[in-house]
This record gives sequence, structure tokens and C-alpha cells, in this order.
Amino acid sequence: MATTLANLVNHQVRLAARPVGLPTAENWQFTQEPVAEPAEGELVIQTLALSLDPAMRGWMNEGKSYIPPVGIGEVMRAGGIGRVVASRNPAFAVGDIVSGTLGVQEYARVAADQAKRIGLAKVDLRAGSVTQWLNVLGMPGMTGYFGLMDVGQPKAGETVVVSGAAGAVGQTVGQLAKVKGCRVVGIAGGRAKCDWVVQELGFDACIDYKAPAPEGVQRWDAVREGLKQHCPAGVDVYFDNVGGEILDAVLARINRKARIIICGAISQYNSTTGMQGPKNYMSLLVNRARMEGIVVFDYADRYPLAIAEMAGYLKDGRMKSKEDVVEGGVAAFPQTLLKLFNGENFGKLVLKLAD
Amino acid sequence: MATTLANLVNHQVRLAARPVGLPTAENWQFTQEPVAEPAEGELVIQTLALSLDPAMRGWMNEGKSYIPPVGIGEVMRAGGIGRVVASRNPAFAVGDIVSGTLGVQEYARVAADQAKRIGLAKVDLRAGSVTQWLNVLGMPGMTGYFGLMDVGQPKAGETVVVSGAAGAVGQTVGQLAKVKGCRVVGIAGGRAKCDWVVQELGFDACIDYKAPAPEGVQRWDAVREGLKQHCPAGVDVYFDNVGGEILDAVLARINRKARIIICGAISQYNSTTGMQGPKNYMSLLVNRARMEGIVVFDYADRYPLAIAEMAGYLKDGRMKSKEDVVEGGVAAFPQTLLKLFNGENFGKLVLKLAD
Repeated sequence: MATTLANLVNHQVRLAARPVGLPTAENWQFTQEPVAEPAEGELVIQTLALSLDPAMRGWMNEGKSYIPPVGIGEVMRAGGIGRVVASRNPAFAVGDIVSGTLGVQEYARVAADQAKRIGLAKVDLRAGSVTQWLNVLGMPGMTGYFGLMDVGQPKAGETVVVSGAAGAVGQTVGQLAKVKGCRVVGIAGGRAKCDWVVQELGFDACIDYKAPAPEGVQRWDAVREGLKQHCPAGVDVYFDNVGGEILDAVLARINRKARIIICGAISQYNSTTGMQGPKNYMSLLVNRARMEGIVVFDYADRYPLAIAEMAGYLKDGRMKSKEDVVEGGVAAFPQTLLKLFNGENFGKLVLKLAD
Repeated sequence: MATTLANLVNHQVRLAARPVGLPTAENWQFTQEPVAEPAEGELVIQTLALSLDPAMRGWMNEGKSYIPPVGIGEVMRAGGIGRVVASRNPAFAVGDIVSGTLGVQEYARVAADQAKRIGLAKVDLRAGSVTQWLNVLGMPGMTGYFGLMDVGQPKAGETVVVSGAAGAVGQTVGQLAKVKGCRVVGIAGGRAKCDWVVQELGFDACIDYKAPAPEGVQRWDAVREGLKQHCPAGVDVYFDNVGGEILDAVLARINRKARIIICGAISQYNSTTGMQGPKNYMSLLVNRARMEGIVVFDYADRYPLAIAEMAGYLKDGRMKSKEDVVEGGVAAFPQTLLKLFNGENFGKLVLKLAD
């Protein structure tokens, strides 16, 4: 069933050039196209909301990674939630709410053979809101779930530390670890975020890495002191979203057989002097510990199970989710993305495009 | 049964001060003591040969590790093979050949409750020579065995890379991986070592990281090029003894689900500017790979099985062992130890004290 798309214009944001350091205006190009009627097998989706993620910075770089880079001139890759507005694909009907890699654009036209490639799936708004489907029930939630459960393998009573604690992945990890009976210590930037994860999400403690350190104390020494204070029994599982000095600080406090999940390194993504490797990595040897990477796509077969479990926790109040929703359409994308890298976002960063 | 020890003098090397960078003469103190007759439960062991290991450098540092540091004024810790020359411990008879942490001294007097703590065990010279008991059948061999088999879990057909390939641990790892059906690529310093591991030990290839690089090519680029050439199917298991630039070079070539065994970081032990962390550690994420530490003592219960297996390989020719045996008594210890750090040793470094 197709509706008429005449007169609709698709505004897009494309990658114009690869950034060095923080992305700037020169890295982006704004384009617009008419929205064409779907051909046989195609469907057209109107984007309702886009997920803005630290990983986007990596996709802008040249070179081999777990996913090919966004090509110069291509619509910037982004996961999102949308509504089917025209369909000649029997698997989707007009009005269906779907998630998938829609890109930073108002309308995505999807060929039959593309649907699977962009992970197109119907979402049930009874399980969670549009923004929750980009957060706990979306990629960040899946990343947190499988990173913690499959790679971290926490046991009740163990101490789990998570950085980027108020972010999308961090809030999932911390709350899930609490559900599983762990002591949970977050690391986040700013008093408000720390208070929220402790008071609202039930973390046992949160270290504010941006807190003014006492006179004569270095900031990272204060983080180390916080870890010592809040992890009196050491650290069994560390879920790392940030890398850099915080990873080193936690490495210095890990227990025997600790598991470190490498999910991201947001502190390093915009470095113009190269990545900073973990100087304390020999703590892995001393403690017979391991550091292991996670890429969420590997667990796609099990997303439905994780979604069902966490939707249950959202319903019964054992988990909450917080999204930082920015309005302003695709034009607001470049500036909004920067919020991730200066830590301005509070909760999962979402760009809302339509109701 | 006790023999008379009168007139015997025990020459010892003690840690005088903690080194900064490479150990120098100021870090050592030479002492001598009479050899006392054993009291009830004690035994006296004459050291035949000592194992000189990169790990010794770590034991000289202050601070928490997998084993307490050697105290200032204490006899330097060292594993060795000795002969029981006096015994009032019913578990050991005069003439027994034993291995254990004897220290850098000519005679070790061991109390009953100390025997277990220093890992004292009889060795069977039919299974291997004194120096082989410090090499493939000793701690380095056990480290290589359990690091490779338990942490690395190589499968036939996979590519295993090992640094310090001609060293004690490296030669064990590479040969064992060949026995298990893997493609094995070593990294070693110098043509002679590389030729030896390929021609004598049967490695598939060896990269000489000290080879003069072609005009205009950086040394580490040459190592990266060598890895590309000799690991056309990527790296599945990397056994790291060296850290630094070589660890980074291998990280850039690992496969999905690769296992990196962190056994040591000899390139960093004498750094006066701090450890260099692996800048490419995000390759763990991209490749869903893990990096895990090994401490051999955890496997003590299974040493006999590993020794039996590898003694079999030595007998049937599937494994060889090479020791770099230095004579000169305990006085030669400080200078001999430095051979490890400039890569002068060729094979397991052994200091021979007596026949």
C-alpha cells in the first residue's frame, strides 16, 4: 500500500570530509531531495528520532573497523526509529513503527534487500516509548546487556564499575548489574549525573571525575581515591566506555580474574595526538584478568530476549531510562553530536525529527 | 642424614637498593656466610644452576604485584636447581636433585615449613638435563604451556605469533603450538635467533625486529610489514613477552576473537618514563578479542602433567631446548642479568654455579 509522497522533501546530512579532532561545520554537507514513491519491494520510512552515539565519531574515520566507514558524500549513518509512510514491501505496512539504520535524514527509502542490512525491525510501543527504543531497548541497551552479561559475567556480590554511567550504555549496565545483585559504582562527569545514577537508578556510589579536586590533588588522583573508597573489595567487572586516564585508574584497582569490557573510548576519539593506551595494562597479568571487546551486532539473534527482559524491568520499575532529547531537525545534528564529546548530554542523546 | 658442612662458605647476592631503569652495581650487595648444619626438619641445598628471568626486574620494584617484592637486604630471589647436601627433612635425601626458589646464593638452607613455599620438588634428570629443568621443564616451560593452552586455546590451523621467540618461554610456546597444528610466527632480535627458531625449532617464519630496515622505512613499520607477510590469514593467538611497539604491531593484525596472552613486557621493564600502554588496544573491540594475563603459579597442580607431556616431546624430538649457560658463580649474576634486557642471551639464560 502506497500513499502519495508528492511534495515531500527529504533533508539530509552527509559526510563532506573526514574530521581531524572534533567534527566541525566543514565536515558536513546539507542536502535535500524529493521523496520518491517506492518501487516494487521498497518502503519509505519517516524518521521520528535518531540515536546519537559516540561510535559515530569512529564511523567518520577512514580505515578498517567492525563496520565500514561512512563514505564521503554519503548520508551520515545513524540508527533511528521511524514510521512507515509508504510500502510496497509485504513485510511492512504503512503506520508500522520500525527501528533500523535510517541515517541522518528525514525519510529513508529502503529496498527489499536493504531491509535486513539496516536491521529493520518493527518495534512495539507498548514495551517502551520511541526514545526508550533508542536507549535501553535499542542498541545502547543491547550493548550494555550483552557486554555486561556475556563478556563481564558478573556474579551476585561482585563489584561492577561503569564509566559514562549516566550515558545510554552506562545507565543500562549499572541498573542491570544492580538487578543481578552486584555492588555498582559509576563514574560520570558532574554532580547532577552522579546524583541521578545514585538517587534515581540505585547505583551504590558514583565518582564525579569532573569534581574540583581538593587543593594540591590532581583530578585523576581524586578518581583513584574515589575508586579506593567506593570499591573497598576491589573491582571485579569494569565496563569501559571512556578509555584514557579512567581506564588506567580502574586497572589499578582490579581483582584477581577481573573482567574489563572494552565498549568504547570516548575520551580518545577526538584526540589529534593518537590514542592513549592503558599504561597499567600489566595489571591484567598481575591479576590474571582479561580485557575484551564487544560489538553488539554479534548478539543480534538474542536481541528479542534481552529486550523482553529489560522491558520487564522498565515495567516493574527495576530499571529507568533517561533520554536527552534535542529538537531542531537534521539541521541540529552537527551541534548536537558535539554534546557527547564535551559530556553535555545527560542521558541517551536523541535527536527528534518528528512526532 | 647430615653430612659435615664445615668450612663451606655461602656466597650470596642481595638486593641493596631498588633500581631506576636498568639495574647497576649499586643495586647489589655481595655477602658471604658460613653454611650451618641443618636443624631438625631442615635441609641444605647446593645450587647447581640458577634461572635468570625477565620477571626478576619486576621483583626488584616496590609495590603490589603477583608476588611480594624482594626486600632490601634480602638474597635476590631466583629459581634454581640444586643438590641436597644435608638433610634432616625426611622428604629429601642427600643427593636428591631438586628445583625451587633457591635464591642467588651457593647454598640454600630450607626449613620444613619453607619447602612448600619455595616450591621445592625433586627433579628427575632422566626426563631432562639440569638446564632443561630450568627451561622447557621449568617455570618458563610451564608459563608457556599454560599461557598458550589455557589462556590462548589455540586450534589446529590457527596462526600463533610469539615474541621473545628464542627466549625460554618463546621457544616453548612456538614449538608447542607447532605440535598442536598451528602456523607459528616468531618475533626475535637478530638473524641468528630467527634462523634458529625457523631451522631448528620448525617455526614457519620469524620476524627479526632488529633487522636494518630498508632505506626510508621505520623499524616498526618493517615489523608490521613482516606480520602482514607472514600472517596472511591474520593472527589468532599472540603470546606477548615484550609489550611496547611490538604489541601494538600485532594488535593491528589480529583476527576476530583473537586471544592475546600477556606474559611480560620486557621492552618496558627498565623504562624510566613509565610504561607504554598499547595504543592499538581498541583493536580488541573491533575484533571482539581479548587480552588476558597469566601467572604460572596458578597452575602448580598441573605442572606434573605438562612436564610429562613436554618431556615426551623432548624425547621424541618434537621439541628442542636451548639454554644460554653462563659460568662465573654468583659474582657474575649482576652482569649476566643484563643480557636479558639487551637481548644478548640466546635461549634460556642460566647461571651455572656448580656441576
